[in-house]
Amino acid sequence: MQQAGLIHPSNPGCYYYLPATVRSMEKLVRVIDQEMQAIGGQKLDMPSLCSADLWRRTERWELMGKELFRLQDRHSADYCLSPTHEEAVTTLVAHQSTLSYRQLPLLLYQVTRKFRDEPKPKLGLLRGREFYMKDMYSFDVSEEAAYGTYESVCEAYTRLFSRLGLRCVQVQADTGNIGGTLSHEFQLPADIGEDKLLVCESCSFSANVETLTSDQTNCPKCNIGTLELSKGIEVGHTFYLGKKYSNIFNAAFSNTQNKPTIAEMGCYGLGVTRILAAAIEVLSTDEEIRWPGLLAPYQVCVLPPKKGSKADDASAIAEDVARGLSGTLAHLKGEVVLDDRIHMTIGKRLKDAKRLGYPYVIVVGQGALEEQPKFEVICQNTGETMFLSKDGLLDLLRTVETV
Amino acid sequence: MQQAGLIHPSNPGCYYYLPATVRSMEKLVRVIDQEMQAIGGQKLDMPSLCSADLWRRTERWELMGKELFRLQDRHSADYCLSPTHEEAVTTLVAHQSTLSYRQLPLLLYQVTRKFRDEPKPKLGLLRGREFYMKDMYSFDVSEEAAYGTYESVCEAYTRLFSRLGLRCVQVQADTGNIGGTLSHEFQLPADIGEDKLLVCESCSFSANVETLTSDQTNCPKCNIGTLELSKGIEVGHTFYLGKKYSNIFNAAFSNTQNKPTIAEMGCYGLGVTRILAAAIEVLSTDEEIRWPGLLAPYQVCVLPPKKGSKADDASAIAEDVARGLSGTLAHLKGEVVLDDRIHMTIGKRLKDAKRLGYPYVIVVGQGALEEQPKFEVICQNTGETMFLSKDGLLDLLRTVETV
Repeated sequence: MQQAGLIHPSNPGCYYYLPATVRSMEKLVRVIDQEMQAIGGQKLDMPSLCSADLWRRTERWELMGKELFRLQDRHSADYCLSPTHEEAVTTLVAHQSTLSYRQLPLLLYQVTRKFRDEPKPKLGLLRGREFYMKDMYSFDVSEEAAYGTYESVCEAYTRLFSRLGLRCVQVQADTGNIGGTLSHEFQLPADIGEDKLLVCESCSFSANVETLTSDQTNCPKCNIGTLELSKGIEVGHTFYLGKKYSNIFNAAFSNTQNKPTIAEMGCYGLGVTRILAAAIEVLSTDEEIRWPGLLAPYQVCVLPPKKGSKADDASAIAEDVARGLSGTLAHLKGEVVLDDRIHMTIGKRLKDAKRLGYPYVIVVGQGALEEQPKFEVICQNTGETMFLSKDGLLDLLRTVETV
Repeated sequence: MQQAGLIHPSNPGCYYYLPATVRSMEKLVRVIDQEMQAIGGQKLDMPSLCSADLWRRTERWELMGKELFRLQDRHSADYCLSPTHEEAVTTLVAHQSTLSYRQLPLLLYQVTRKFRDEPKPKLGLLRGREFYMKDMYSFDVSEEAAYGTYESVCEAYTRLFSRLGLRCVQVQADTGNIGGTLSHEFQLPADIGEDKLLVCESCSFSANVETLTSDQTNCPKCNIGTLELSKGIEVGHTFYLGKKYSNIFNAAFSNTQNKPTIAEMGCYGLGVTRILAAAIEVLSTDEEIRWPGLLAPYQVCVLPPKKGSKADDASAIAEDVARGLSGTLAHLKGEVVLDDRIHMTIGKRLKDAKRLGYPYVIVVGQGALEEQPKFEVICQNTGETMFLSKDGLLDLLRTVETV
């Protein structure tokens, strides 16, 4: 992403997100919002600074070791920069003194910047010390209800990756320092992935190697298939937490008999900046950046002819096309870029367009000056090139999905 | 805001923003995006962690004293949590080695969480230790061009507050530790304001008292009017910086003669969470929260009759109205809430609706069962109550502005 001018390095593991990246990230957040709200998620926003007292109560203040950024305020009170918010959200829910079983399940989520003092930050946004994460926390009346919620979040994750056109594998995972009894990772298969996965050839079983003994070669589920090793980039993680946190902070609701009852919890992360980086990694080629169609910073780039070239007269037509598209097609408003650096050749600007990953590049050349004007359209995500009339162009772009 | 269930306290000066607040804040950010992009602003996102080295070069590492949250990473390197990003953005621009005068003015902005270790955090979101701020930085080819940019940002701020329906005064201000030669504050007049303003009765002059000698009573601009003292809440601040930062970090561009030239800078802040809190403060009454219309978390609340009441049969009509509104009027999609807690009286739910500040409350009672159904509509921002047919309802709500 750095080579393409999408990010710029700051401190180790910290990056400036440049304008195209911010546009793409905002689109991703909209897709996430849609999917989380479709299953009843409510969006809130919790402080980054978290008091050490809360983390000491779960013993994570000690457990997290050097991964936790720690600081003191002017009164020498201890704080951390939250990498995750189990303590904070459970305390919040515990303070809702009138919470009734009728209001559960409660699915609270946020999309905020998280902090983790990685020993070796690397691979740009894939393993940084500051990153955006969507973290959701669920509160349920019973174990059964909580498993139902867990399932529904996993399904929402699967829908999300499918909408982005990304192949994603849900694998059994270790619960790490978050705790709980059940956990899955959502992995995008990729050679540069840091996680090792074992995937059964015969059934749907797959797991992070951490959860199995290293010499296991037979599938523990079907007992038939052998396990194949592959690599993946973790982009999501779900945990069934049970009462681990709700017991500590007394996050309770009134049950049907009006008795205070401790809630069953789950937590569910999605690496927002990591999904962007991983998607570009798995979709792009050496010459071209490819974004998931929905997330491209801009959908369309229009290239007028070079100044002084034979097709020079088509310049006004190009401006017209660019204006017309965003005017006629409401979903393309703000999505069409006119690259009017007409002192440069079409070829050079086309190269830039490929590097930025516009799904559709429209070259306005001599064809546009013919009696029946034709436009060259390069569909970067499929590799197709087409020659279309203006109506054909509108028909093609009318179907582009945006968010 | 805390009383209304919009925020919940965490550490001193840190708050959970609850779902209604997040909705409102996201709307405010959209208005800000529109106004900043209308004057050529490009949105990026800079790290919160900033290396002490950068801040030492501008001497702000020492100057900021205890207001700066400081921490060390696992390698004992010093960082601060950025309250503002002059150092970071100037370094970024300095690294763009091919920056040409053709690309200026460059207006870079972000809307991110900022940190300031306030000695006495108070008044909820008005003076917190974590808060959202929009900070923009401009880079220009000359002093003249930079003053033009400064003006255009001030005008954008004025448009923004006017769209929000908030009276805002632009006053001369002190440049504080940011530095530079010219500065204005944007103040919302309010009794709880912490800033003291002197406003001339005769001309347009107004200033923060900090910029004048305490015994000044005559207007220094028109020499005629006397200065009246009033109080204000600072919601925005603009600074003309000149070359203070660009000289230090060597933020240069190629001029028309292709010679490297140091850029002229400005910086411009808007307190995002503070605007929300201040707006509620100046617009609300003791019984009701009022939002700027554009920023209300939801525009419409529909109240079906109490279960078992005489109007019970109108329940289905209420559901119909709620569904119909967000179906027929595209701009109200997701903006209509059906308060179906029908075990509660209309009166009790109406009180809640007032506390949450829906601009429009539709009471579906016996009138809805008449041959020519009528609906009671309470417009909270104007205090009007109307009785409208379904068509009248649609006509009224069609004109509601949303973002």
